[in-house]
Amino acid sequence: MSRAKPNSDPLIQQLRSVLPDSCIVSDPASMKPYECDGLSGYRQMPRVVVLPTTVEQVQAVMKACQASKTPVVPRGAGTSLSGGAMPHKNGVVLSVNRLNRILDIDGQNRCATLQPGVRNLQISDAVEHLGLYYAPDPSSQIACTIGGNVAENAGGVHCLKYGLTVHNILQVKIVTLNGDLVTLGSTAPDSPGNDLLALMMGSEGMLGIVVEVVVRLLPRPPLARVLMAAFDDIEKAGNAVANVIASGVIPAGFEMMDRAAITAAEDFVRAGYPADAEAILLCEVDGTEQEVNAQLDRVKALLDKAGATQISLAKDENERILFWSGRKNAFPAVGRISPDYYCMDGTIPRKEIGNVLTRISAMADKYGLGVANVFHAGDGNLHPLILYDANKPGDFVKAEEFGGEILDLCVAVGGTITGEHGVGVEKIDRMCVQFDEATLAQFLAVREAFDPDGLLNPDKAVPTLARCAEFNAMHVHHGKLPHPELERF
Amino acid sequence: MSRAKPNSDPLIQQLRSVLPDSCIVSDPASMKPYECDGLSGYRQMPRVVVLPTTVEQVQAVMKACQASKTPVVPRGAGTSLSGGAMPHKNGVVLSVNRLNRILDIDGQNRCATLQPGVRNLQISDAVEHLGLYYAPDPSSQIACTIGGNVAENAGGVHCLKYGLTVHNILQVKIVTLNGDLVTLGSTAPDSPGNDLLALMMGSEGMLGIVVEVVVRLLPRPPLARVLMAAFDDIEKAGNAVANVIASGVIPAGFEMMDRAAITAAEDFVRAGYPADAEAILLCEVDGTEQEVNAQLDRVKALLDKAGATQISLAKDENERILFWSGRKNAFPAVGRISPDYYCMDGTIPRKEIGNVLTRISAMADKYGLGVANVFHAGDGNLHPLILYDANKPGDFVKAEEFGGEILDLCVAVGGTITGEHGVGVEKIDRMCVQFDEATLAQFLAVREAFDPDGLLNPDKAVPTLARCAEFNAMHVHHGKLPHPELERF
Repeated sequence: MSRAKPNSDPLIQQLRSVLPDSCIVSDPASMKPYECDGLSGYRQMPRVVVLPTTVEQVQAVMKACQASKTPVVPRGAGTSLSGGAMPHKNGVVLSVNRLNRILDIDGQNRCATLQPGVRNLQISDAVEHLGLYYAPDPSSQIACTIGGNVAENAGGVHCLKYGLTVHNILQVKIVTLNGDLVTLGSTAPDSPGNDLLALMMGSEGMLGIVVEVVVRLLPRPPLARVLMAAFDDIEKAGNAVANVIASGVIPAGFEMMDRAAITAAEDFVRAGYPADAEAILLCEVDGTEQEVNAQLDRVKALLDKAGATQISLAKDENERILFWSGRKNAFPAVGRISPDYYCMDGTIPRKEIGNVLTRISAMADKYGLGVANVFHAGDGNLHPLILYDANKPGDFVKAEEFGGEILDLCVAVGGTITGEHGVGVEKIDRMCVQFDEATLAQFLAVREAFDPDGLLNPDKAVPTLARCAEFNAMHVHHGKLPHPELERF
Repeated sequence: MSRAKPNSDPLIQQLRSVLPDSCIVSDPASMKPYECDGLSGYRQMPRVVVLPTTVEQVQAVMKACQASKTPVVPRGAGTSLSGGAMPHKNGVVLSVNRLNRILDIDGQNRCATLQPGVRNLQISDAVEHLGLYYAPDPSSQIACTIGGNVAENAGGVHCLKYGLTVHNILQVKIVTLNGDLVTLGSTAPDSPGNDLLALMMGSEGMLGIVVEVVVRLLPRPPLARVLMAAFDDIEKAGNAVANVIASGVIPAGFEMMDRAAITAAEDFVRAGYPADAEAILLCEVDGTEQEVNAQLDRVKALLDKAGATQISLAKDENERILFWSGRKNAFPAVGRISPDYYCMDGTIPRKEIGNVLTRISAMADKYGLGVANVFHAGDGNLHPLILYDANKPGDFVKAEEFGGEILDLCVAVGGTITGEHGVGVEKIDRMCVQFDEATLAQFLAVREAFDPDGLLNPDKAVPTLARCAEFNAMHVHHGKLPHPELERF
């Protein structure tokens, strides 16, 4: 392939007429960082990258792309784990990183107005002096942007109690494919018309470019305490989670780690986890002192009844942070014990946790690959880390097949193929397992209502019916659906 | 007009082939109760009413209607205050009242699966023994159905703390216009694909027929206490509301009544309200005892600082119920002092409450009509009751114009034309004031993605661009926009 000559590309010439040169990146070396996002197994160089600094520039870019039928891939910080920001080879990558101002903080109405490139953690930092914070806290919160959070409907440890992104956004402004600026939602408690605000959440760049976001701010809870419980059996730990939630307690965070994850984390950060446990749970409760104590009493009794071999309450704030340090560093810790890992994301009913983890362990044996589990147990949101070696021929393909089989299992037990990472390019074929033709047709019709030419982040998130027909035929043909494992459910 | 001969109508003949006779109502006398909903000023006899008892029957009705291009108007209990269930003269009214079974109560996952005709209060009654309840509580909760709640995104006193219908529904099944049964959302914590679940909430019957709903259940709070505060000035009361919410306290309910509403309620139920107050606030907080006490202390201090002339804490559960009795009976109480009233519904930023109530009072003088205000102050959700006499020529038209002017004012101060009653037929023209052409075009495109022929609840909720062009031309021509009042803002 010959090297692209940016200046001879008519699209780039047109973009130069609406954007300053400093907002256009078209030489291959400078575009390299945009080649992939957090799903680095998938790579594609774009035609050009634009970094607008005003909403008007975004509108001009969209008009140029619509006129020339050019695909547009929006991008925040590029932390997506499902390839949501992977470029299109004929397309523009539209980065919102330079639209990064906090426009307004309104303590009285407890909301903040942000440009899409504002980083998630930056919001809570900016309102800390008011005793407020922004609740959704994805692991990538230091880096990821609020625009990307909207596109992926991002979650995090504290979403069990405080909701996903969709529950914490009051209003967004988007630029549509034809360059219109449209305001969705309202800072008032309800908004007439179709709820296009919610529709934007998790729409993965298919409906428009987010150029402004109004987030809800919450008062910081006066007290938070965390319990660690150890179990000698993973099914017991899973059932304990289901029982606590069923009792009516809503912990601020409720996380689970299996033996492989515990060992890796303990070797890395010495969080004080019991090395001989098959599973541990971290359960944080927050509120007033009385509320916290009442919840801790109930949780302790339920964990005890569920067969916990050890229950430790962090005695002070230092120990609370120490307990969490193992969980927060679990991904890099697993990175130390395996050359590469592939992080899956699926949800299941809580009562299936023990059962599904046991099945995943059996699959690991079948594929000859290791697996570590560290996840949002209270939400039933699994994150199996499949261990593989990218330099070993065939290993990545095996890891992908293993991941796909986990997702099929999630669907089979009544769950979904993604909890918070989105579908992107990674799981587009699994959408054919999750949904029937009528539902997919309705998704496609809605997509078309915003984007009749299919230019907004094409070939992601929602598969065509033809693609599904092909996938399902192959899937069955290869004897993968039903998996022998699934038949037993 | 000659009386219809039902049996000669080919549509009814076709419906008879897919439904038992007992599910079809076509004689005018029996159809009379379906002529209007809670907005009784608008009436229209339908072509036929069907009351299916199975999902398969709903699918068959939809297929018949699509094939014959017949409009379909879904209907729950008919308590809509915006005419959402008003029949179409050539159309079918599809009542879900016989789909009224509670299909499943899952205490462990804290959710319940319901047919759409289950009444709102029936849900909480059915799960009381588990210590759970369903939070959204519209005033009509004894009668209104969960299917109608979904269609209107219903609110209520407790939505300030616990969210609107959209925040409390996990999954719905709908029958689309072509008869497909589609499942939207998931009992798992997130669902891939476009968020069509949220899109269904408040979609006012335009996207499909809700045939099954999974609601989230909440644990009953251990304690609730209510404060009543009196003010000698309505602006002071409005500012007090804004300050309490800004402080970070989220009351379980935070209601306001003005002098006219206080007097009417007091004459009717003797709730113990101070007769000389210009406004009262009812502020309920719930949670553990310590949490309740801490919140009450903060709220009292803020109300005091805002200039409350009297603050009374209900001393026991009996007095708590008494304080609420005035608020809950305020609408019928106003019905005793005026032959008719017209209940408006709009939202405004809380800091505008005092200002807007003062302007509404000036409008009342201009129109020569009385007005009483009783509303969800914490949400900024106004419910002015415009007093008129339907038997006095011209009075209803004046009331409608007055109501329209209030809605324009809501939009002018940054609010919306509906908080919880929906747009329906009542406020369809005000959608042209609320939204610009680009946003309306996007609403219409989404509607078309579900209903290309415009058969689902036609001529409601979202106006055509042509209708708006006409309305806006007339609106300006009559000198109503900007209103002289609005110019001063």
